[in-house]
Amino acid sequence: MTAEALNAFMAAGFAKWDRTGITIEEAAHRFVRLKMVTGDRSLRPGGTVSGPAMFMLADTALYAAVLASVGPKALAVTVNMSINFLRKPEPRDLIAECRLLKLGRRLAVGDVVIHSEGEDEPVAQATGTYAIPAD
Amino acid sequence: MTAEALNAFMAAGFAKWDRTGITIEEAAHRFVRLKMVTGDRSLRPGGTVSGPAMFMLADTALYAAVLASVGPKALAVTVNMSINFLRKPEPRDLIAECRLLKLGRRLAVGDVVIHSEGEDEPVAQATGTYAIPAD
Amino acid sequence: MTAEALNAFMAAGFAKWDRTGITIEEAAHRFVRLKMVTGDRSLRPGGTVSGPAMFMLADTALYAAVLASVGPKALAVTVNMSINFLRKPEPRDLIAECRLLKLGRRLAVGDVVIHSEGEDEPVAQATGTYAIPAD
Amino acid sequence: MTAEALNAFMAAGFAKWDRTGITIEEAAHRFVRLKMVTGDRSLRPGGTVSGPAMFMLADTALYAAVLASVGPKALAVTVNMSINFLRKPEPRDLIAECRLLKLGRRLAVGDVVIHSEGEDEPVAQATGTYAIPAD
Repeated sequence: MTAEALNAFMAAGFAKWDRTGITIEEAAHRFVRLKMVTGDRSLRPGGTVSGPAMFMLADTALYAAVLASVGPKALAVTVNMSINFLRKPEPRDLIAECRLLKLGRRLAVGDVVIHSEGEDEPVAQATGTYAIPAD
Repeated sequence: MTAEALNAFMAAGFAKWDRTGITIEEAAHRFVRLKMVTGDRSLRPGGTVSGPAMFMLADTALYAAVLASVGPKALAVTVNMSINFLRKPEPRDLIAECRLLKLGRRLAVGDVVIHSEGEDEPVAQATGTYAIPAD
Repeated sequence: MTAEALNAFMAAGFAKWDRTGITIEEAAHRFVRLKMVTGDRSLRPGGTVSGPAMFMLADTALYAAVLASVGPKALAVTVNMSINFLRKPEPRDLIAECRLLKLGRRLAVGDVVIHSEGEDEPVAQATGTYAIPAD
Repeated sequence: MTAEALNAFMAAGFAKWDRTGITIEEAAHRFVRLKMVTGDRSLRPGGTVSGPAMFMLADTALYAAVLASVGPKALAVTVNMSINFLRKPEPRDLIAECRLLKLGRRLAVGDVVIHSEGEDEPVAQATGTYAIPAD
């Protein structure tokens, strides 16, 4: 699936997709890049993006990377996700890049790195496993 | 901190605490139990609670368990969290119980189990590490 | 499978099972308890059991819990494992208890807690996912 | 620390370092590459390297990356490690590369990718957190 198709698929499936602030900017086989516009919706006191907002971004990135690689399977589900919070993010948009480390018939495993836009050091890293339903 | 003090602390610190649907129902040394009322806010298509909503509940439970044990330290931060999604939750309120496996001077580690209210089998399990700031 | 059958299955399948120091002491549906005799084999400088030795014990516990519940499937494999090292273990035998949080047709998820024998506070906790082969 | 200094430090600190089959081949600030010669020591039935042997390699890589960056602190300890087993490794030497995602005063977080020598697709991926003792 292309980035355009993925954005349309998300908007059709999730009533509140617009409110997440997330856009899929690039999609390829086993790779996606997403941007999350950070509004006050996800900010903690002190102006930083909350951990759960970063988790949602990482989970969405992994879901999008699976869909980009195997096509629109709405029922792919997260089996588990392990996330490391590395440093306080700037109050700035976040970029998430996900690469699939494995793409099996039933399980996909991906690595997600999240940066504040324009910064080198990552603010969070996650790895997760998705179960892919049989057709 | 008591459950009552924790609820007041959360409401004072997080502008949108009310919207999370979370209440701390019980708090003791190294233990808390939380309830999350599930509204349409966190529901995925199909009527189930989303993964990120369960992550938020697990993260809040661990934060509350740390505060219950060491007092109001707003700056305690999640170092990492690993969450397993075990089965599709019913469209019903969720109960999270968190026990601290370790409470050191600088790091606390806790285990969180999430159930749909009235069900025995857990819908999610998480373990996480919190960094506790020096005074 | 009973504890006795599990010990025999392990000894037959792993040429160096004896050298691990591990015995399955109790087995039930979705539960096992193992003991690891700690010799100098697995000790770090300072006399404590090494992290990799505790990982091996946790991984074996999860494998045994799966076999105890679904029968002898040698080809069940670890998908992932997340382990927390909580405190320095005493130079003493270790007890691992594993409970399956989920036992699906294809995936099992278990929680493992490791104690030094005779101590209350756990030295390590792990959660892991196993893939169960189709027959 | 250089690769040479790291190998000497490991050999001096761990009586059975030689038996692990591990050599640190390259070390830089926040990066190391290790090789593990796989003998029958770590092979499972079927001739593949065992999960615990890959865990030991990942844990050693993270420890070496911390030492390479902060100097010889024998007492740095693993706080947690999350490992994904991606595919059956060939019965061949393994290469592990570790990059530190964060190097704080007290905590370091690293990402480890393990390949069979000469293969592109990784056989395992791990992320872990190390606690760095105060001087």
